Amino acid sequence: MEVKARAPGKIILSGEHAVVHGSTAVAASIGLCTYVSLQVPPSNENDDRLTLQLKDMALEFSWPIGRIKEALSSLGGPFPSTPTSCSAESFKLILALIEEHNILDAKLSLASGVSAFLWLYTSIRGFKPATVVVTSDLPLGSGLGSSAALCVAFSAALLACSDTVNIDMKQEGWLVFGESELELLNKWAFEGEKIIHGKPSGIDNTVSTYGNMIKFRSGNLTRIKSSMPLKMLITNTKVGRNTKALVSGVSERTLRNPDAMSSVFNAVDSISKELANVIQTPASDDLSITAKEEKLAELMEMNQGLLQCMGVSHASIETVLRTTLKYKLASKLTGAGGGGCVLTLLPTLLSGTIVDKVIAELESCGFQCLIAGIGGNGAEICFSASS
Amino acid sequence: MEVKARAPGKIILSGEHAVVHGSTAVAASIGLCTYVSLQVPPSNENDDRLTLQLKDMALEFSWPIGRIKEALSSLGGPFPSTPTSCSAESFKLILALIEEHNILDAKLSLASGVSAFLWLYTSIRGFKPATVVVTSDLPLGSGLGSSAALCVAFSAALLACSDTVNIDMKQEGWLVFGESELELLNKWAFEGEKIIHGKPSGIDNTVSTYGNMIKFRSGNLTRIKSSMPLKMLITNTKVGRNTKALVSGVSERTLRNPDAMSSVFNAVDSISKELANVIQTPASDDLSITAKEEKLAELMEMNQGLLQCMGVSHASIETVLRTTLKYKLASKLTGAGGGGCVLTLLPTLLSGTIVDKVIAELESCGFQCLIAGIGGNGAEICFSASS
Repeated sequence: MEVKARAPGKIILSGEHAVVHGSTAVAASIGLCTYVSLQVPPSNENDDRLTLQLKDMALEFSWPIGRIKEALSSLGGPFPSTPTSCSAESFKLILALIEEHNILDAKLSLASGVSAFLWLYTSIRGFKPATVVVTSDLPLGSGLGSSAALCVAFSAALLACSDTVNIDMKQEGWLVFGESELELLNKWAFEGEKIIHGKPSGIDNTVSTYGNMIKFRSGNLTRIKSSMPLKMLITNTKVGRNTKALVSGVSERTLRNPDAMSSVFNAVDSISKELANVIQTPASDDLSITAKEEKLAELMEMNQGLLQCMGVSHASIETVLRTTLKYKLASKLTGAGGGGCVLTLLPTLLSGTIVDKVIAELESCGFQCLIAGIGGNGAEICFSASS
Repeated sequence: MEVKARAPGKIILSGEHAVVHGSTAVAASIGLCTYVSLQVPPSNENDDRLTLQLKDMALEFSWPIGRIKEALSSLGGPFPSTPTSCSAESFKLILALIEEHNILDAKLSLASGVSAFLWLYTSIRGFKPATVVVTSDLPLGSGLGSSAALCVAFSAALLACSDTVNIDMKQEGWLVFGESELELLNKWAFEGEKIIHGKPSGIDNTVSTYGNMIKFRSGNLTRIKSSMPLKMLITNTKVGRNTKALVSGVSERTLRNPDAMSSVFNAVDSISKELANVIQTPASDDLSITAKEEKLAELMEMNQGLLQCMGVSHASIETVLRTTLKYKLASKLTGAGGGGCVLTLLPTLLSGTIVDKVIAELESCGFQCLIAGIGGNGAEICFSASS
């Protein structure tokens, strides 16, 4: 039996950084996913191993189930319906298993992903053999929520083949969980995210689980539904950045300039609220799709100016802005800034020739360009009897 | 007899555009001047003409005094101590005089400068012969206040050789007017500015007259005194811009996004006030020059982000920003934006080698680079018995 799961990445449409200081932010899912295939060997077969293949990195981790049981038996499981946090002691036991594979220091971030996998797997499915294969459209560590998509896809595949979740396995094509299953999925994915990120906001896994968009402020998340098709060019500058340093840079600037920065955060709050409004309001005779797109473009340009005011832009981001500005396209950084990814709104009526030209110019700067629909589906699963 | 006058240009240090919406702005004089030399022929000479030489443009305008008297006798004069506005009828009479010189349409803006000259000359000095020679460090129409500097320098030279102003003509070197003469000078220059600009704010001529810096908000000007040496690289992108369209673009954006933009203007107001504070506070053990410069750099960067948020930046401005950012130098556009000039703070301890590199790189983009001290003297005059 094979269960496939896919879970989308996310972008921040508006409000990054300012959200830390009380402003509203808006995040959305993107049509770029992480895919997990969970293959369960026939019970008569003698393949008693748990194998994790990270296809994009050509890496494989494999353990005899007996070895996992020996190392992690104290954790118990499976408890698919009871999302629990990985304690420091459990994490140590898991790390010992991973260290047997001699991951290089340079790939320590990978170790945390594999840890999250082992925690989710044993917690949800217990000590059963399987081969789990991961592929992804999402560049790693560039602020597009690749780790959350990974945790959501792992959890979705694992829950799909547990008894907790009620799904008609004979249905064909990609299926969506019911509302209560989505809630459970989101909680498990959040536990995985905690292993990878320490203190995640919960936004990435929520967007990846439910899809579409969410508005969030001071820890309160509201799911909102887009009423317009929205397509973005996502340019990955490939410039690595230190999110923590960028966040504390904004805080320090706020301490030095409390009045100015508080006005800046208020401006961002207004922009996020207006952006959510525009996205939710259906197009009409009074408000064409084009008018809505122009409004979004203006809000993105304004938000970008405010992010520059916070000091989180970067020469690579400015290069993208300048390039897209030449084609009269609006752009803003997304996420932490200081490199990472830049969003460019692609209006419905924009010709493909222009898009090709922009992409060619950006790629000639060494950037990676991805085109994605915004606000699409969240986690989905798919069954096939044999693989 | 020869009277020389010089009057500085200006930059907006912070608050452009936002000042239209009620925020505080700060303007400062720059160490780049317009020079006027007024040469009065010995009374026994038969040179009965008024001649205006614009050296930088290799242009000369010359009229027999009789012709001027005939055309403008209805205006009367001289009234050096009574600054008066040029009425629409007077303007028509003056234009007729200028049209005799067949100025091309492309140089219509020049015509308004020559009109201002004729108005100031006949109003302050009446119908006497002279040769007036103009040269300038200031690029025209790039937002550095070249027209105000011209009007101030004209008025200063004219007032200096009128009986209204009391100056010891035997003193050597550049002299400054007394407080009441400066007030008179500023009023006359403002009348000239009105001929050139229609509805000038009065900021440019005030800065050019008094020098140093002024803080202004809702039409109230406050002169402030800088307590630190300040040097800027002024990069003229040479991109012409439509100030009126830029100003109304900001107003339209404000109508579409009242909440966000009102916060943006509040942020600019805080920045201008803080900038004025930093500039006025003397350096001390607790606040070194370097710390003050860092603070100014941060405020400039923030202001630039907010200007981008208002939508008045331009690809050429972004190119300057990106270039100076590479050298960790803070920049902001100055004036209307959409091209025009960009300021880059040159810290006291910055090496000349770096400055040379930045300038070379900017000039290779086709920009013009000027280095200027900020907040220096205003209008000054100088006498020489014969020339």
